[in-house]
Amino acid sequence: MRFIRTLSKAARFVPESGTYPKGFAVGGIHCGVKKDGKSLDLAMLHNTHSKDGVAAAVFTKNKFKAAPVQVSRRIVDEKHNQHINSIIVNSGNANAVTGAQGMKDAEDMVKVTDAIFEDGPNSTLVMSTGVIGQNLPIDNILSGIPRLGLENLGSDHAHWLNCATALCTTDTFPKLVSKQFEVDGTTYTLAGLCKGAGMICPNMATLLGFFVTDAPVSPAALKQILTYSVDRSFNAISVDGDMSTNDTIVAIANGAAGGAVIDVGTPAFETLQQSITEFAQQLAQLVVRDGEGATKFIELRVNNASSFEDAHKIANSIANSALFKTAMYGKDANWGRILCAIGYADVGSDAVVPTTTNVSFIPADGSEPLKLLVNGEPELVDEDRASEILAHEDLIIDIDLGTGDSSTKFWTCDFSHEYVTINGDYRS
Amino acid sequence: MRFIRTLSKAARFVPESGTYPKGFAVGGIHCGVKKDGKSLDLAMLHNTHSKDGVAAAVFTKNKFKAAPVQVSRRIVDEKHNQHINSIIVNSGNANAVTGAQGMKDAEDMVKVTDAIFEDGPNSTLVMSTGVIGQNLPIDNILSGIPRLGLENLGSDHAHWLNCATALCTTDTFPKLVSKQFEVDGTTYTLAGLCKGAGMICPNMATLLGFFVTDAPVSPAALKQILTYSVDRSFNAISVDGDMSTNDTIVAIANGAAGGAVIDVGTPAFETLQQSITEFAQQLAQLVVRDGEGATKFIELRVNNASSFEDAHKIANSIANSALFKTAMYGKDANWGRILCAIGYADVGSDAVVPTTTNVSFIPADGSEPLKLLVNGEPELVDEDRASEILAHEDLIIDIDLGTGDSSTKFWTCDFSHEYVTINGDYRS
Repeated sequence: MRFIRTLSKAARFVPESGTYPKGFAVGGIHCGVKKDGKSLDLAMLHNTHSKDGVAAAVFTKNKFKAAPVQVSRRIVDEKHNQHINSIIVNSGNANAVTGAQGMKDAEDMVKVTDAIFEDGPNSTLVMSTGVIGQNLPIDNILSGIPRLGLENLGSDHAHWLNCATALCTTDTFPKLVSKQFEVDGTTYTLAGLCKGAGMICPNMATLLGFFVTDAPVSPAALKQILTYSVDRSFNAISVDGDMSTNDTIVAIANGAAGGAVIDVGTPAFETLQQSITEFAQQLAQLVVRDGEGATKFIELRVNNASSFEDAHKIANSIANSALFKTAMYGKDANWGRILCAIGYADVGSDAVVPTTTNVSFIPADGSEPLKLLVNGEPELVDEDRASEILAHEDLIIDIDLGTGDSSTKFWTCDFSHEYVTINGDYRS
Repeated sequence: MRFIRTLSKAARFVPESGTYPKGFAVGGIHCGVKKDGKSLDLAMLHNTHSKDGVAAAVFTKNKFKAAPVQVSRRIVDEKHNQHINSIIVNSGNANAVTGAQGMKDAEDMVKVTDAIFEDGPNSTLVMSTGVIGQNLPIDNILSGIPRLGLENLGSDHAHWLNCATALCTTDTFPKLVSKQFEVDGTTYTLAGLCKGAGMICPNMATLLGFFVTDAPVSPAALKQILTYSVDRSFNAISVDGDMSTNDTIVAIANGAAGGAVIDVGTPAFETLQQSITEFAQQLAQLVVRDGEGATKFIELRVNNASSFEDAHKIANSIANSALFKTAMYGKDANWGRILCAIGYADVGSDAVVPTTTNVSFIPADGSEPLKLLVNGEPELVDEDRASEILAHEDLIIDIDLGTGDSSTKFWTCDFSHEYVTINGDYRS
């Protein structure tokens, strides 16, 4: 059984224009990984401003790390986050569990990209996404790299959109955002691209993302900001709770917009960290919007928790509960399942105390919240009102733990028949 | 949309007769918790042999512990596992998140049961399963207890089956097993009852189980055996990964069959532990057989792991992967998802080493295993052969980690459209 996914979200979430950071050229072409012979499957980003790009990266914690993850991690470490100027990505094949050949292929993708820009060795990070356990059609990729890098890069909106599109596997829309912010009178620009919708095809995997800015940022500051922002964005989303072998998020700053270097401890640091975090959240939310089979977009707000980590674990526990997610799909105000998932989260006994726990639905239309549980005692819920609230695509669930003063947000989607169809029936 | 669940499994998994332990009377009646006015909803077990029943129990680790869990835990602790002779269970209402009234109701169920058997206080353990967040129809239960305890208990197969049936919520069949084993020339009998199929109705929850034997066992031995056996049975199954507020497993030994008391360190201890563990596995597997929407019964064997705990965590990670479970539903030999779930299990970096990892399918019909991954390198899989193997209801997946000499088994089911229907659409 094949399925047809609605493309209506594409119109709502794909920008028609954008303002992009200075000093970056990007693009995407078809090089011959995807078997349809035409879909874009090779994406590149290059820092044209200088040879001094500052880069930070976070990678999957999965023990079966794909070859490109191992290669990119080595490069970021060896180069101490400096002099990294390009990103090369193929979609359609994850180059994961591919043995020694896979490592050589990932290294060759770096070498060829370095060579066409006459950069020193290891100036490029590499990413792959797609099928696990098959070797790359490496000749197609290596011949595609010069064609993309020398003939098809640019800085127009169309180039950025091509680049984002070439990251996609079975995403229903490319994920691209841009914004400007100001630090000490200088205007900087951020652009972000990512892909991911769960694992739509059998063996298809991966969250990939990168964001780039023309702000001048020190390596230490960029590393710290990336970790902070990813903890509050890409690490705070869940479609199905499966952590892939290829997850990679990269940030590159080239300083092309001028101004003083932003370092840890400078007044501009907080501003930059806040801007990048909000931006990363915006990008990460697009992955949830495009979640496999998703009909709901759910924001979990965990407040007054004993620590940020505990708040995060509790949100994660709810977001990954199959029973909670199917209830949301069924538009069922089933707070017992929310409570149950809070209760089995892996936190200490001081972190969740039934008599201080409160749960409410916050309607997407700004109307009055609906209380479900107040200090551990169930409310008599107006089921009609609950149905009204749950009829919206968007829903906010507020959990007040009353055990501290930390908080977090987390984004997830529901669990639908279509999810099972996509993941179970795809090849039948 | 309502759903109709096949009852064909009932015929295969419900015994037509049994040999039951001496000195126990059991039964089940309808007392008025379930709204259909007829389904059995009150179950009781009573040790008629003496006032000296030895009991051990394990309870949910969920922080929102239902009132009966809190009460039973207190009793087991206060009585030091001794002089516990009865179990009273209602189905249809979990008495969870019900505040002070819920605690009083659970305590009253104990008091009334103690009173009708003229036992001392706290001689009864209490369990409830069903809807969360509503108070019990306690008058119906308290008037039902004498009717059940004084007029409807017995030791025939029909009584045991009634008792098992009265535990059920939306289970499709009652879960009852019995067996005999020999220690030092004396024959002992075990009987086990449990309920659970995930959370079928909105707010329906819970795994409940108890097993009883006429062997004479010391409190220390019974506690140790229960923990050991539950770790390898009820803690080694997963339908949907959601841990309920009411999970409870109780063991009671009354010594009615005579013989020397079996204590820790005696030669008979190992025999008893092994017998109870195999028995508990048999019982726990019935829960997986009755898993919501399940079309597959999957045994995960994790071998050559660095520790039992690591083996367990890895099996648990696979068993709860939505992507793995939907692939099994789709009869898709998707070993990438198995590997992915092994790779993100929460174990140390020495516990999973890609180059020593092996994964095979072991066919239910005893034919040749199908290798999927050998020492971290993917095999060229014969898809036709994989389809043949996956066409069976039963499947064994062998994971050899090559990082130690510990092993474990774990049982799970697949994730189907019907699961989503049951849990999402039930009230619509």
